[in-house]
Amino acid sequence: MPVFRFTLEYDGTDFEGWQRQREPKRTVQGTFEAALSRLTRREVRVTGAGRTDAGAHALAQVATAEAETPLDPQTLQRALNAGLPDDLRIVACSEAPPGFHPRRDAQGKHYRYRVWNRREAAPLLRRVTHHVPYPLALPPMREAASHWLGTHDFKSFETAGSAPESTVRTLQSLEITGENGGELRFDVRGNGFLRHMVRNLVGTLIEIGAGRRKAAEAKPILAARDRSAAGAAAPAKGLVLVSVDYGNL
Amino acid sequence: MPVFRFTLEYDGTDFEGWQRQREPKRTVQGTFEAALSRLTRREVRVTGAGRTDAGAHALAQVATAEAETPLDPQTLQRALNAGLPDDLRIVACSEAPPGFHPRRDAQGKHYRYRVWNRREAAPLLRRVTHHVPYPLALPPMREAASHWLGTHDFKSFETAGSAPESTVRTLQSLEITGENGGELRFDVRGNGFLRHMVRNLVGTLIEIGAGRRKAAEAKPILAARDRSAAGAAAPAKGLVLVSVDYGNL
Repeated sequence: MPVFRFTLEYDGTDFEGWQRQREPKRTVQGTFEAALSRLTRREVRVTGAGRTDAGAHALAQVATAEAETPLDPQTLQRALNAGLPDDLRIVACSEAPPGFHPRRDAQGKHYRYRVWNRREAAPLLRRVTHHVPYPLALPPMREAASHWLGTHDFKSFETAGSAPESTVRTLQSLEITGENGGELRFDVRGNGFLRHMVRNLVGTLIEIGAGRRKAAEAKPILAARDRSAAGAAAPAKGLVLVSVDYGNL
Repeated sequence: MPVFRFTLEYDGTDFEGWQRQREPKRTVQGTFEAALSRLTRREVRVTGAGRTDAGAHALAQVATAEAETPLDPQTLQRALNAGLPDDLRIVACSEAPPGFHPRRDAQGKHYRYRVWNRREAAPLLRRVTHHVPYPLALPPMREAASHWLGTHDFKSFETAGSAPESTVRTLQSLEITGENGGELRFDVRGNGFLRHMVRNLVGTLIEIGAGRRKAAEAKPILAARDRSAAGAAAPAKGLVLVSVDYGNL
């Protein structure tokens, strides 16, 4: 049976995250599997590059599925899109390279976290940004982030409930752009991420930007290897999975 | 009684446009008047810089209201925002200059029309862009737009049902930016706009960009002074009122 590789964009606002759950929970994986199963008249399972949280978005989540279909990838994509709700779309579809696995073959991921940093909320951005109504200073946030770059044990930024495996990850970059009194973007790239890691990193940076913590705490927070040392997780609605890197695959 | 000047941002998706209508129609003006009336315990009427269509958005609609309140503008703004739904926010509030009228004193308006120009729809932009799945060529659209700049009778771009007044307007600029295979933005500035004028201009440009009409038709369409000469209106969801210009007021 051919294996297809899909790139998915979704507005996570009205999904209970990526991972399939029991009905009537509406999830991205469950919704996509249902569409594939309807089209092929068989039960199809989908494997994703990673789980996104309830309320978090994706510009390019990657997933595979084995599907018995006479359709070529482009026709399959169109047929599936015709049956998907308008907050989920397949933006690319191809035959997967032999043995391709969307999670194991991922060399890195790029997440973006968007903050609306004005006193008043922005109705037009409310679904895709986290509103922080008090001023955030960029220099201390950037200084703190610089201490986290590289390969470290990120246990302090892992939310409990994760599988008991290594918490060492490589943070390749964490760039903060934007102006005061507008939108701030936190672009985070790494070889892999622990549960809620991006939201925990950004939540801690927000506390530093607001002056509730000092940039100098960044190193000790990391060294503590203790979730309670870091700040609160930033809400999922500001988070978007921008891309998954597979090198030449 | 003091007169306040408000700047309003709204996501027009779930509103039936600006103008107050009978219940249960949910409109921006009606929603805002209800909030002001609740707060002041009197019936308050709001005057806007102009009506926006059902589904169209605003980053900075301007409105005034006379309101009997001991609150200063900043406190009034906060109190009102606390009671408004999250798709409508007052982003600025001040005492209006003496005699200020949001419609009559407007010297110009800036509208933006956003098109998502890829084959597949974009879930994250679906509320604020119009999806055009076929390629649009920029050069003929830009050439056509250049023929409309300046002061003309824009009757061909006015949707019927408007008041029988002058249809002469000055189009100050119409810039088209973006890349093929992504988002296109039509930034339109003028001293005033007829009913559906921006949507009719953009709808006609889309037909030209798609090759269904030629750029050379731009002049004769304008000269015809006949709505049926121009193209179909582009849908309201792509339209946002960016700003209203009051000079030094």
